Amino acid sequence: MNSRIHIKGTGITKFGELWDKSLADLFYDATEAALADAGLKITDIDQIYVGNMFAGETSSQSQLGSLPASLYGVNVPSVRVEGACASGGLAVRQAVEALQGSRPQTILVVGVEKMADFPSDVLSNLLMQAASEEERIAGATFPALYALLAQAHMEKYGTDRKHLALASVMSHENACNNEHAQFQKQITVEQVLESMPTCEPLNLLDCAPITDGAAAVILSNRKPKKDDGKEAYIIANSAATDALSLADRKSLTELEATKKASAALFAQTEISHSDIDFVELHDCFSIAAILALEDIGFVKKGDGGKAIERIYNNDPDLPAINVSGGLKACGHPAGATGVKQVAEAAMQLRGRAGKRQLENPRYALTHNIGGSGATCVMHLLASSEALK
Amino acid sequence: MNSRIHIKGTGITKFGELWDKSLADLFYDATEAALADAGLKITDIDQIYVGNMFAGETSSQSQLGSLPASLYGVNVPSVRVEGACASGGLAVRQAVEALQGSRPQTILVVGVEKMADFPSDVLSNLLMQAASEEERIAGATFPALYALLAQAHMEKYGTDRKHLALASVMSHENACNNEHAQFQKQITVEQVLESMPTCEPLNLLDCAPITDGAAAVILSNRKPKKDDGKEAYIIANSAATDALSLADRKSLTELEATKKASAALFAQTEISHSDIDFVELHDCFSIAAILALEDIGFVKKGDGGKAIERIYNNDPDLPAINVSGGLKACGHPAGATGVKQVAEAAMQLRGRAGKRQLENPRYALTHNIGGSGATCVMHLLASSEALK
Repeated sequence: MNSRIHIKGTGITKFGELWDKSLADLFYDATEAALADAGLKITDIDQIYVGNMFAGETSSQSQLGSLPASLYGVNVPSVRVEGACASGGLAVRQAVEALQGSRPQTILVVGVEKMADFPSDVLSNLLMQAASEEERIAGATFPALYALLAQAHMEKYGTDRKHLALASVMSHENACNNEHAQFQKQITVEQVLESMPTCEPLNLLDCAPITDGAAAVILSNRKPKKDDGKEAYIIANSAATDALSLADRKSLTELEATKKASAALFAQTEISHSDIDFVELHDCFSIAAILALEDIGFVKKGDGGKAIERIYNNDPDLPAINVSGGLKACGHPAGATGVKQVAEAAMQLRGRAGKRQLENPRYALTHNIGGSGATCVMHLLASSEALK
Repeated sequence: MNSRIHIKGTGITKFGELWDKSLADLFYDATEAALADAGLKITDIDQIYVGNMFAGETSSQSQLGSLPASLYGVNVPSVRVEGACASGGLAVRQAVEALQGSRPQTILVVGVEKMADFPSDVLSNLLMQAASEEERIAGATFPALYALLAQAHMEKYGTDRKHLALASVMSHENACNNEHAQFQKQITVEQVLESMPTCEPLNLLDCAPITDGAAAVILSNRKPKKDDGKEAYIIANSAATDALSLADRKSLTELEATKKASAALFAQTEISHSDIDFVELHDCFSIAAILALEDIGFVKKGDGGKAIERIYNNDPDLPAINVSGGLKACGHPAGATGVKQVAEAAMQLRGRAGKRQLENPRYALTHNIGGSGATCVMHLLASSEALK
């Protein structure tokens, strides 16, 4: 990656069970918020990328690239990008790829998902489209697949069940400061350990919820007219894939796609792990947060559980994670999550994160995965200050 | 668009009702064919784009970007692109967008769709995800929506029913020379007119079939080591969108997305319509071929019906169309079609189209639309000879 992509605006809807909002409503609300933030009109947008996992199945609506044409009457190139729960991050990445060309462009990226209307057993089956055929036939669900990863990690590295629980506790604490979050409510380690078992060792409070929501970012390869020192930029991105089946992976205690994406990301810049102030990482299940900290490279393999505790205790040698509340507590509208992570990171870097604002953050990472880790997409963001 | 994208290899599976081939089989077969044609190994590929309309619904499989990781053990960035029946063309376009950057890359694009396993009433409903909510609720199907366009065109411009039929006849004649085609069988205008009515004025033989199939192209922004005068390049691309609902469109006799995409495409080069030797255009229904000839700009609005007759009679002032047999007779595996069009155009420009080879073609257009025209994506290709 060779140029800085300016984040001109962001918009995030309320995340939650939004019975009175349709897919198109959510799309529109996030877009309007991002346009207003950027001080732009829809006609200033040159291209649109839509991140969505399964509106065909949940809203009988595909071809979401044409939603803006239906909503606004614009005719710009617009396309949907899908990579299961990494759809949003991949949509941002496609925009960034397009912005690497020489043509000056302003691109709108919208991630949107409408999930809560479905009975959970139907949704559970639909979600398994993001796993492998063998896993579906075997009757696995995503809690089961992540439980396998958790079991392997606990067995191999002696990871403490309480560290998994603490990942959820931390996300809930953070979400209390986020007005967009689905759960603005603290929980305790004991509550996680006593919540309904889903698949051993994971309980209900180890799992991200079912969420409706949308997020939008407006990206440009045009230099901002004036950088008042409060701008945010994407300075690198990467993506990687891995086999759909856990059975076809090299290991059950690491996600190869995250390792490859992280290596590719850091290889593009001089920035190192210790420069990163905070990470929005993909904690669809508590074990996923632990794996991410290891696989991105913040701590060595096996130390992820302890790292959660260190971060919870504000260890200055580790970045803050999921200040938004993460997937666990901010909520996880599948195709919106990856866009929301970038929007959230930009808000922090621009000093606009309200009650959850970190003190002068300079560098942020976003980490978004699909399925049980078959896709990973990452972005590295920097503040004006950092790039001076 | 500022650089030429070299088409290093192409692969097309047999199109048809392929009961013994899974989605993954088709993906693999097209990829292997393209790799062999390019003289490359899968490990030479830097990124992958997958065009697919609805494998989630028809094969319970999303996250198709990870299929290559499952099939080959590679971990490269790979993502699915969706825009209904324009998914394949949009996947090619995303690859081309990425190749406009300065990073030298070789990108595999695979379009794949598995449709024939479904009862036609179930499939008919699934296809309507690419239309608008109102149209679905009204009980419309795609034959009905295109029948409305045909009725309006016949009423406003006196378009002859026989000209619609002739579009199908021509595609079937061409498909007789294409070993990949679903229907290698001639039909007559009378047979079209007497075939089962679907929605007035369209009959069964005005409609593209339900098809399984896959196509792959390998694209690179690296200059070929040697250009022996038999290479093919993408020299421009464009895309546009329009409202999902026919009711929200400006007109029922033209597809705005095609008009916008065509204008944007030709604005990028010195090439004019009269330079184009052949077009692979989106004839999902016979009326669509007529609309495309007008909306791309080969003839004036209303003259598309007569243009079909002129092309059938080899009028040198108009390009050949759908030498492959088009969607009507080669078949229309939704997400594969746009990739197959580019693969087919490259085969012609490289002089490798076998029995259907045109005489020294220099410039080709591909035209791929989604739904009832809510998405359009076009590519302009040129032979080595043309670029000398």
